[in-house]
Amino acid sequence: MVLAIEWRDVDQPVIRLIDQTALPHQERYLDVATVDDLVVAINDLAVRGAPALGAAGALGVAMAMNQAGREGWDETRLQSEVQRIRDARPTAINLAWGVDRVRGAMPQGVHEVLRQAQDLVAEDTAANRTLSRLGADWILARTGLDQVRVVTHCNTGALATTAWGTAYGIIHELHDRGRLGLVYADETRPLLQGARLTSWELQQDGIAHVVQADGAASSTILRGLVDVAIIGADRITANGDAANKIGSVALALACARAGIPFIVAAPTSTVDLSTKRGEDIVIEERTSDEVTTFNDHRTAPEGVTGFNPAFDVTPHDLITAIVTERGVVEPAAHPDPELLASIAR
Amino acid sequence: MVLAIEWRDVDQPVIRLIDQTALPHQERYLDVATVDDLVVAINDLAVRGAPALGAAGALGVAMAMNQAGREGWDETRLQSEVQRIRDARPTAINLAWGVDRVRGAMPQGVHEVLRQAQDLVAEDTAANRTLSRLGADWILARTGLDQVRVVTHCNTGALATTAWGTAYGIIHELHDRGRLGLVYADETRPLLQGARLTSWELQQDGIAHVVQADGAASSTILRGLVDVAIIGADRITANGDAANKIGSVALALACARAGIPFIVAAPTSTVDLSTKRGEDIVIEERTSDEVTTFNDHRTAPEGVTGFNPAFDVTPHDLITAIVTERGVVEPAAHPDPELLASIAR
Repeated sequence: MVLAIEWRDVDQPVIRLIDQTALPHQERYLDVATVDDLVVAINDLAVRGAPALGAAGALGVAMAMNQAGREGWDETRLQSEVQRIRDARPTAINLAWGVDRVRGAMPQGVHEVLRQAQDLVAEDTAANRTLSRLGADWILARTGLDQVRVVTHCNTGALATTAWGTAYGIIHELHDRGRLGLVYADETRPLLQGARLTSWELQQDGIAHVVQADGAASSTILRGLVDVAIIGADRITANGDAANKIGSVALALACARAGIPFIVAAPTSTVDLSTKRGEDIVIEERTSDEVTTFNDHRTAPEGVTGFNPAFDVTPHDLITAIVTERGVVEPAAHPDPELLASIAR
Repeated sequence: MVLAIEWRDVDQPVIRLIDQTALPHQERYLDVATVDDLVVAINDLAVRGAPALGAAGALGVAMAMNQAGREGWDETRLQSEVQRIRDARPTAINLAWGVDRVRGAMPQGVHEVLRQAQDLVAEDTAANRTLSRLGADWILARTGLDQVRVVTHCNTGALATTAWGTAYGIIHELHDRGRLGLVYADETRPLLQGARLTSWELQQDGIAHVVQADGAASSTILRGLVDVAIIGADRITANGDAANKIGSVALALACARAGIPFIVAAPTSTVDLSTKRGEDIVIEERTSDEVTTFNDHRTAPEGVTGFNPAFDVTPHDLITAIVTERGVVEPAAHPDPELLASIAR
């Protein structure tokens, strides 16, 4: 399995990222040793996905401390550089959470920060494995099917996490148990994380799948071609609303109409109990050009503006199950915020 | 206004098409004088849109008769060539309807067929003008708004019709009345009719708009950024279900949740009373490559298959209004098939 992010000692300690903007055509790695480069990598989505951003945040603090040592930063400068990493993207809670998890250890030195960051990475991987098993158990019990056909949106595999994946992890687990039918992977415009990344991971893992336009997802669900939709999340609020890649809520609306489960898979690090409900989430709006061009080729006429919200919010009453490493809650059937709080605390 | 399709006498009589695959970057015309070329133009979507296909079908019969004269076809050959035009695409009813409208006149000669075909073109243009006024009236009465913000999907303007447009015609009419706010145009993957064609027409007509990824439509609606969704149709069945470009039903589901009107605009030539309900419509599945490539650049990994249904079906209970040149019916509130039959006959 490819690793989206890891700590490496090359000539100097670096964060090694697989450059996700170059996939699936090129498998290229970026060795990042400066805050500038890390912020660019985060903004350009060379590293992306809520759990992977958590790792980038935590490892980023250690990296910034090394850079501070090399370049003679004072404490104020170091703290402001760490803050830049924390604020590089607004919607995924995990980036800020990763920074905050290790920030308190900074007075104990870079080795302690790095140890805690690597603990976080290991915990995320373990959480993914556990939630994947719980999710597969839940789906097989709920649907009663021998073979489960799945639709998913965006990328939630090893590339989006520290390893294994969240929604993708459940798909992988079903595959390993011999219980997976066909996977429909939404291409996920504008940046095609589904066509480029999920399809690449599915191919590497030998999982039968097709890629479809995002607009096809609703009718694929309504026509009875899938049994369940499984997606990840960038932030889950206290009431069970979930922010995820733009286009996700379309699947939720179609699943509700079709009467099939709509599942959000995420580690508890994605749950943000301090935000009450989806309307309170800051939705990142990305550059117009991502919508109006494709591969440096302009699609819309010159002078036309693209509207490019990167995420949408699925209300909790459309979410059949939120699957975490500490258990499954069912917001649509049991809309009790305390259930989510009880496992996320 | 550009004409998508017209009869022209150049060196010989031809069907002149604006090549919609080259827009918005090139304004290029195709002069079509043979059935082979017309079928290719229809399959490659150089001409597309339900009403424009009706014109292509009717004018195509006259063109085939001219070719028969030049090439000495017998009656059997001529009829089989006309049938090839009729069957070039399965979902839009208008193509077959256009052929059938003039076919009975073939014994009277090509001039009579051409006259009837040109009547059909004129009727379609008139129908578009009328339904655009009726649609604008209905929307302004229903919403009570001074400025109406609209989301639309695919292309339904002059390029999709004989002139003026259907859903686009209503948007244009609202604009002419000074009652139009911002238009959100879905880019409409895989072939980007929204980004390439609708945006081009909106720009030509000086109408303020943004282009968005198809996946953004649901949240644009749920966030209250638009007041109404207006789309066209390729076939409307007797019970009021409507087939339209893949991705349309996602807007309908979101509008139902948001409590805003979802409007299907089409001339009565798009109503197919002989098909009872949406499930009975043959959905054209187009080539995998349209999904897995973009502008000859592969997006998904080599060897991965794209699932590419070209249309979806919106059930009548999600359609607030069907706007035709003979009146408006409201299938969601009044699910009475006789209402549709009464205006479509």
